[in-house]
Amino acid sequence: MAPPLKLYLIRHGIAEERQPHLPDQQRALTAKGRQKTQKVAQRLQTLGIHFDDLQTSPLVRAHQTAEILQHQGLVPRIHVSDLLSPDGNWPDWLQWLQDWRNPGLTHLALVGHEPNLSTWAEILVWGQPRQQLVVKKAGMIGLLLPEHHNPVGQSTLFWLTAPKLLF
Amino acid sequence: MAPPLKLYLIRHGIAEERQPHLPDQQRALTAKGRQKTQKVAQRLQTLGIHFDDLQTSPLVRAHQTAEILQHQGLVPRIHVSDLLSPDGNWPDWLQWLQDWRNPGLTHLALVGHEPNLSTWAEILVWGQPRQQLVVKKAGMIGLLLPEHHNPVGQSTLFWLTAPKLLF
Repeated sequence: MAPPLKLYLIRHGIAEERQPHLPDQQRALTAKGRQKTQKVAQRLQTLGIHFDDLQTSPLVRAHQTAEILQHQGLVPRIHVSDLLSPDGNWPDWLQWLQDWRNPGLTHLALVGHEPNLSTWAEILVWGQPRQQLVVKKAGMIGLLLPEHHNPVGQSTLFWLTAPKLLF
Repeated sequence: MAPPLKLYLIRHGIAEERQPHLPDQQRALTAKGRQKTQKVAQRLQTLGIHFDDLQTSPLVRAHQTAEILQHQGLVPRIHVSDLLSPDGNWPDWLQWLQDWRNPGLTHLALVGHEPNLSTWAEILVWGQPRQQLVVKKAGMIGLLLPEHHNPVGQSTLFWLTAPKLLF
């Protein structure tokens, strides 16, 4: 039996535009993207938020976002997970989450991409995706997953914010 | 045809406890409730938020919350609506909203009670209530209602926050 879990789904910051000779996975945060993500990280620290674990998509724009959160002291270390890449799928991720849950871990952050993050949040909260959540770059979703084992359709939404509504 | 509408559903601040000889509708904000609501109002002003109209439940704790928002300069005047009292019902309120919509009005705030606010938000976004949104006292929900006429199941959620996640 795992305890209730606060799950923070964080979208990567603003990244370089797509270009013909730049692989999508290499697109980096822009200066503005870094700056906004840094401000989000500072705000989270001010709010007293801390993660027991942070998993990030391997794509550069997500990994850089995760590093900014780590450098702000929000989490001791970051882990890369292919399940959080744009082609990660829901059943595999849900299985990972169930395996990950542990009585000692109550705050988990994931850094990834849209539409996956909002789709997964909707499945956890309402049991099915409707694509009605607006998650801006460097924005986030906060969910509370219940104590019992299957969180699908049983989780509650306590936070949804764009960066500009944080500072 | 009405333009897209930003709808802010704001729960009243922390109020006095229920007491045997105090009618529910007379329960006032506590000192802490006033203070937190004031901080929310200041934050909304800092964020550049402004309402074209604010409608409030007639109950004292809601009306006082609305006054704090008005005094902060977020809206020129406030209106009292029985539809926002705890026994207000969804069909009547939806009809009111449809009649209210006007090409010149794009930002509407409502101050009221739980579980009505989160229930109505869920119907607007997902077409049915599931009671999976957590709306704390002086917390709020931000919805974007589409341009076309019936917003039920067609609106998007762009903001959900507790006061403590705002400052």
